[in-house]
Order: sequence, then structure tokens, then C-alpha cells
Amino acid sequence: MKPYSQLSKDELLSMRSELEVKFNEVKAKGLSLDMSRGKPAAAQLNLSNGMMDVLNSQCDLKSEEGVDCRNYGSLDGIKDAKRLLADMSEVSMDKVIIYGNSSLNVMFDTVSRCMTHGVLGHTPWCRLDKVKFLCPVPGYDRHFGITEYFGIEMVNVPMLPTGPDMDIVEKLVSEDDSIKGIWCVPKYSNPQGISYSDETVRRFAHLKPAAPDFRIFWDNAYSIHHLYDDDPDVILELLEECEKAGNPDLVYKFISTSKVSFPGSGVAAVAASSANLADFKKHMKYQTIGHDKLNQLRHVRFFKDMDGMREHMRKHAAILRPKFEAVLQVLDSELTGLEIGNWIAPKGGYFISFDALDGCAKAIVAKAKEAGLVMTGAGATFPYGKDPADSNIRIAPSFPTPEELAIAADIFVTSVKLVSIDKLLENK
Amino acid sequence: MKPYSQLSKDELLSMRSELEVKFNEVKAKGLSLDMSRGKPAAAQLNLSNGMMDVLNSQCDLKSEEGVDCRNYGSLDGIKDAKRLLADMSEVSMDKVIIYGNSSLNVMFDTVSRCMTHGVLGHTPWCRLDKVKFLCPVPGYDRHFGITEYFGIEMVNVPMLPTGPDMDIVEKLVSEDDSIKGIWCVPKYSNPQGISYSDETVRRFAHLKPAAPDFRIFWDNAYSIHHLYDDDPDVILELLEECEKAGNPDLVYKFISTSKVSFPGSGVAAVAASSANLADFKKHMKYQTIGHDKLNQLRHVRFFKDMDGMREHMRKHAAILRPKFEAVLQVLDSELTGLEIGNWIAPKGGYFISFDALDGCAKAIVAKAKEAGLVMTGAGATFPYGKDPADSNIRIAPSFPTPEELAIAADIFVTSVKLVSIDKLLENK
Repeated sequence: MKPYSQLSKDELLSMRSELEVKFNEVKAKGLSLDMSRGKPAAAQLNLSNGMMDVLNSQCDLKSEEGVDCRNYGSLDGIKDAKRLLADMSEVSMDKVIIYGNSSLNVMFDTVSRCMTHGVLGHTPWCRLDKVKFLCPVPGYDRHFGITEYFGIEMVNVPMLPTGPDMDIVEKLVSEDDSIKGIWCVPKYSNPQGISYSDETVRRFAHLKPAAPDFRIFWDNAYSIHHLYDDDPDVILELLEECEKAGNPDLVYKFISTSKVSFPGSGVAAVAASSANLADFKKHMKYQTIGHDKLNQLRHVRFFKDMDGMREHMRKHAAILRPKFEAVLQVLDSELTGLEIGNWIAPKGGYFISFDALDGCAKAIVAKAKEAGLVMTGAGATFPYGKDPADSNIRIAPSFPTPEELAIAADIFVTSVKLVSIDKLLENK
Repeated sequence: MKPYSQLSKDELLSMRSELEVKFNEVKAKGLSLDMSRGKPAAAQLNLSNGMMDVLNSQCDLKSEEGVDCRNYGSLDGIKDAKRLLADMSEVSMDKVIIYGNSSLNVMFDTVSRCMTHGVLGHTPWCRLDKVKFLCPVPGYDRHFGITEYFGIEMVNVPMLPTGPDMDIVEKLVSEDDSIKGIWCVPKYSNPQGISYSDETVRRFAHLKPAAPDFRIFWDNAYSIHHLYDDDPDVILELLEECEKAGNPDLVYKFISTSKVSFPGSGVAAVAASSANLADFKKHMKYQTIGHDKLNQLRHVRFFKDMDGMREHMRKHAAILRPKFEAVLQVLDSELTGLEIGNWIAPKGGYFISFDALDGCAKAIVAKAKEAGLVMTGAGATFPYGKDPADSNIRIAPSFPTPEELAIAADIFVTSVKLVSIDKLLENK
């Protein structure tokens, strides 16, 4: 196909008429489709139903160290859960704390703690005139939501195919001591599906922040969420790299089983240096008597070990892969060569990131909605919900059925074409 | 028995010799007993084992409004859980938010939120020079721990048999706008087992605080935790009283099923006015995608309704009652008339509060420990761990077996006697 920009006004107008007919036909069906959130489909949830059966009233409900999981105690988690989530975090057991049902909650709490109590004895952030976070963009809206809620100024850093632009990160972090953190999804990033290169990870480990209380918020949300088990992305383990670089306290690493077992009923964990974990625990001991140990036990009894969890993730991949491929196939066949959008085919995670012509994202999302397709709000992938180029759209293919996805992808590309034509016609 | 204070020096010395022989005999047994924490015994936990069976892989895992409890969503709880916990809170369903596994966690989060974001648009507490909380004493150590951790100044208010001394509460709250809250356990209070009188509750509802962001932190931890089902304490419902008094936003009410089902794996809730709940939810939507809905469902399927829960609490009472009575019987028979201690026989809750002669509590706890009995640290029932009179000791009879309790109570009274004799000898 010829790039749209090379088409004449008449050609564009005639193409628009054809597309509008098609669009109105779909619209008339009164569909209700949702590609807005990274929500697992029922078929994926079914994979973990067996977890409902591993604990019963006849079971031994003690952890391996003999703790009655039904009672109070074990502030930082039972040993069994520590082993499993340490393995998942690629660190040793002494480097993890087990939390409740959500790593988002732990990240929120961590920012809140830094606000009220500071990092390792440094001034609480709420006492400082200005606190800033670096935000690789596009990124995860809920990360940005947390920092915005706490009044932390967010600074955009562009994502490259290797991860955040480290030239910019290094420069800003070393020059500005009001920069206290950076949000990272290092593997199969949200929304682009980019995995950070070894060089990027090493440069993170070697950062020399002006602020002694600067921390990398390393949200390894998709660490084992491969689409292609025979071709997984592998990233360097940042805690180890930080130790090697003489920067052991630089990183907080967050994981959870939300998209492994059940969203909302998973188990979350933090991996960090001993000094950082002591800081976390000082807070925790006032915050709770302990998290849900029965759910920790349930996870361990169901998955058994990392091999069991990896086997389980292959089943997730078998469900997700065709969905991603269905969307990508439509993007490829319908948009290749038109020069009205770019996207990356991810090898894992939950999203496909689409960059439309500048100034078109909001209009495309609105157009798709007309035909009954809900997308993530345009701008959501940027701090303050503001995409300076109004270009990025996050596609979440996990929840709809493959049949729905084929229709949804079709509505999406038709919307992209229609809005792009209107944009191009502005200058004809 | 004659009061110890009326005994001569020789009589006291001779009594001490006898008691020391007895004490050393027990000490030689090398026992290990624990009356330190309000921890349910295994027999109580067994009562809820059936909860492990109500959900299984063949079950319908949808809430009554059709939400798949395995997936994301339902920020403030599923409808089924709202109904049950609203009933438990004695409020209507629209006045509750369901939280995670612990009300302590919710109270911590609430104080944290007030620090960083303030109450209903008022100045965040972290921006104020001084924030104070009233603390009825003796009280719950973990409450005091939270306020101390956030640098909130704690002001002791004496407990009366009717609840906190409301003359003092009313005066302080109306005069000092740096007083932002008060910790209350209104029913079967921790540690005294006192239930607030109707007058006390009404006076709370009619408070005229100088600070518009003053809140009553009403921790109804033992709302259905009666020892005598045919003679339960009943307290007025504070939200309703506050509404009647034209003070609807004055209270945050906290409950949980920690000591109903499983500590650590229960469900917590907040009950409050619509305006307050909106404030909570504004925070929650950044903090989490939702709490553990499967555990909410598990609770509803197991208890069914409030009648089911009340029936369940009768079984708890049947286990706890003999334990309380065993301890009280020893206190009664061994200490009555000696004038070396006072205690209240509670009708519910988890504790017996013992007031020793002034200056004796620490020494009694230390003495008991010599013989292998761990008590709650003396002072723990006061802010900053400082009991000005060094008099109060919290007895937690729930965890040991009845046989262990008989021995533990005996060690305790012997320790009380020995330390009291030493104290009295100081002035002979």
C-alpha cells in the first residue's frame, strides 16, 4: 500500500467514504468490546481454579517452619512463600518480604512511607519543597497516578528500544537532588513490551544520583509473562548488578502473582537490600500484624516451586499468544506501508503499544468508542494523562475472546484510518 | 484475708519465705507459658476450618452482582461482603467499604492518609506543627504504636467504668484544635473489657471539636465477641448518634473478622458517613485495584449472614469463657481482700486488666517471666509504653489451654504477692 500522505485529496476523500460505510455497518451492530485494561480472561483464571482445592479443612495448615497459617504472626511472610517469590524475583530468600494481595498496593505504601518517614533516615519527602520522579514514557498509568496523588512532579523520559533513554536518566539524576525515584517496568514494559537491554540495566546499577535517597522503583510485573516460551526475553537481575556496582541500596524491586494466579487474590513481594528491607519492616510492624498466610500457603501448595509456576505460565501464554497475534495480524495486514502508525510486536506482557500520527490518538479512541470498542483513554500512558504528541494508544488484548478481538482490531484499524485521513486532509 | 498493708513486717517476711518456696518450685519446672497477646487458640481456629471448604474449583465464584471474584475490580468490596459486614457494623450497606485482611492496617492507612492528604480537604497533618491524639488509658498498644510512629503527640485520658472520662475529652477537644483524633475500643475495651455507656456514646456524638478535621477512631474490635451470649453488652451505634447530633462526619468505625474467622486471613471494613467514605475511596483508587474478593466470598459463603456469624461466635465463647473464668477464679480466690490489686471481670473481648499497687507492674511481669510466664510488657497499655503509675498489666487468657492457664494464673498471683510484699516492706 501507498503511504496515505502520498495520496491526493480526492483519493483520501474517496477512501474515507468507503471506510465510513464499513464503519457505520459495524457501528449499527451495537457491539460492546473492551480492550482497555490488562485484565486476564476467564479462560486464564480457570487455569488457577485448582488453587481453590489445595487447602481444605482436613489439610495441614502449617508452614514449613511450623507456623499455623491460620493465626497471627509471620510479619514478613512464611518461609515457603519467601522461597517461591524469591525464586520468582531471582534473588535469595533473605532479600524478600512477602506482602498482601497486590504489588500496586506495596508501591503506593512505599511512596507513602517515603513521604512520611523518608528513606533510610533521610528527610521525609513531605518536608521537602520539591520531589520529582522520572517517568519513562509511555508507561503505566497507575504508577503515574500514585506519584501524582502524592504531589510528586513527574518528568517524562523517552523510551528507546533498549529501555529508558539512559543518557537523559543519568544526566537528570546526577544533577538534580530533588529527583527521588524512577518508575520502571523492565521486562515486557507497559505498554510497549520492551525489555531493558543489559547495558540499560548496568547503567541503572551504576547511577550516581545527587539524592542519597533516590530509588529505582523496579516493577517487574511481567517477569515470567512470556508469550513465546522458546524465545523469552531475559534481563539482568538488577539487585545483583547494583551490588556489583557498589550501589546495593539503589533499588526496590516489586513483583506479584496477580497475573499468575488470581488478580486481587495473589501474593506480592518486595526484593531489596538488607538495609532497605529493614526500612520496610520498621514501617510494616506498625502497619499490620501480618498478611494473609493462608493465601501464601495456597500459592505454594498449588505451584510447588518455580518449575511449577513456569509450567503454569506456559498455559497462560497458550491463551494469550493467539490474541496478541490476532491483533498484530490485523495491524500488519491493514496498516503496513500506510505510514499512519507504528507498533512493536511484543514477546510478553499484556499490551501492544500503538503510535498514531501526532494529534490523532484521542480522536481514534473516541472513534472506536462510537462503534462500541472501549480502549485505554488516550494520554493515559503519560504522566498527568497528557501525551504531548497525542499519539500513543495502549491496546490490551487479554480480556476479549479471539472472536471479539478480530472484530475489535478491525474497528480499531478502521478508526485509525478514518482519523488519519481527516488529519491528512487538514493540510491538503 | 487481711489486707497486706495491715500485716506486720515479720508477717510479710514470713509470708514471703513461703511464697518464695512455692515460686521456686514452679520455676524449677522450666515452664513456657504465654499470656501476652490476644491470640486465638487452635481450638478457636478449628471452628473456622470449614471456611477452607466453601470455595472449590467446581464452585460458582461470582458475587451476587455477578462479579467474577477471581478477577480485578470491586474496589470497595463485593455486595455480598458489604451486606455481611454492614450488618456486623450495625449500619446500612451504603455506609461501608470492605478492605483487606486487617482493620489495624486500615487504621494505619487512615492515619497515614490524614498525614499526607488531610481530612475532607483540610490541611494534611504532616504540614501542621503539632498533631495530638487523645488516648483513653489503659488502651491498645498497637493503636498507640501507630500514632507514635507518625509523630503524633498522645494525651492520656483516664478510663472510667463508663468509658473514657468524657468531661476531660469534651474539654480538651473543644479547646485545642491540634487534637485531631481519639482512639476508642468502645465495646469490651482492650484491655479492661469496659463497654461504653449510652451517655458516653451520646457525648461522643455531641462533641464540638475545635478542629474541623477531628475524628473519632472507633475500633469496634470486639463488637460480637461476647463471653456470655445470654448477657451481652450492648452499646449505642455511634454513626446513627452522630447523625442525630448533626455531626455525621465525626467518626470512622473499624471492624474486622480477624477474631471471628482467621487472624491474618479475615476481612476488614470501615463504616462512615458518605462524605468520609468518598474521602477513603479517593485514596483507595490509587492504592489498589481491589482487595481479595475470593476471601470476601469465602466469608460470606461460610457465615451466610449475621445469624450465622452470631452462632459461630457462641462457639468461640464456649472455648474462651472457661479460660477467662479460670483466671478470674484464681484472682478471686487468691487476691480478694489483700488490697494488692484490682481487676474487672469482663463480659467479652480478649483481656483481663489488672491494676497492681503503684510501682509494681514492671516487677510483676519480670517476676512472672522468671517462672516461664510471658505477660504483655508492663506499660504497653499506655502511650509511649509508659504507665505513669507502673500499675497496669494486661492478661490475655485466649491462647493457652485451660490446664496451662491454671498454672499461669497461679504463677501470676504468686508474682503479684511477692512483688507487693517487697513494695510494702519498703515502708516498714
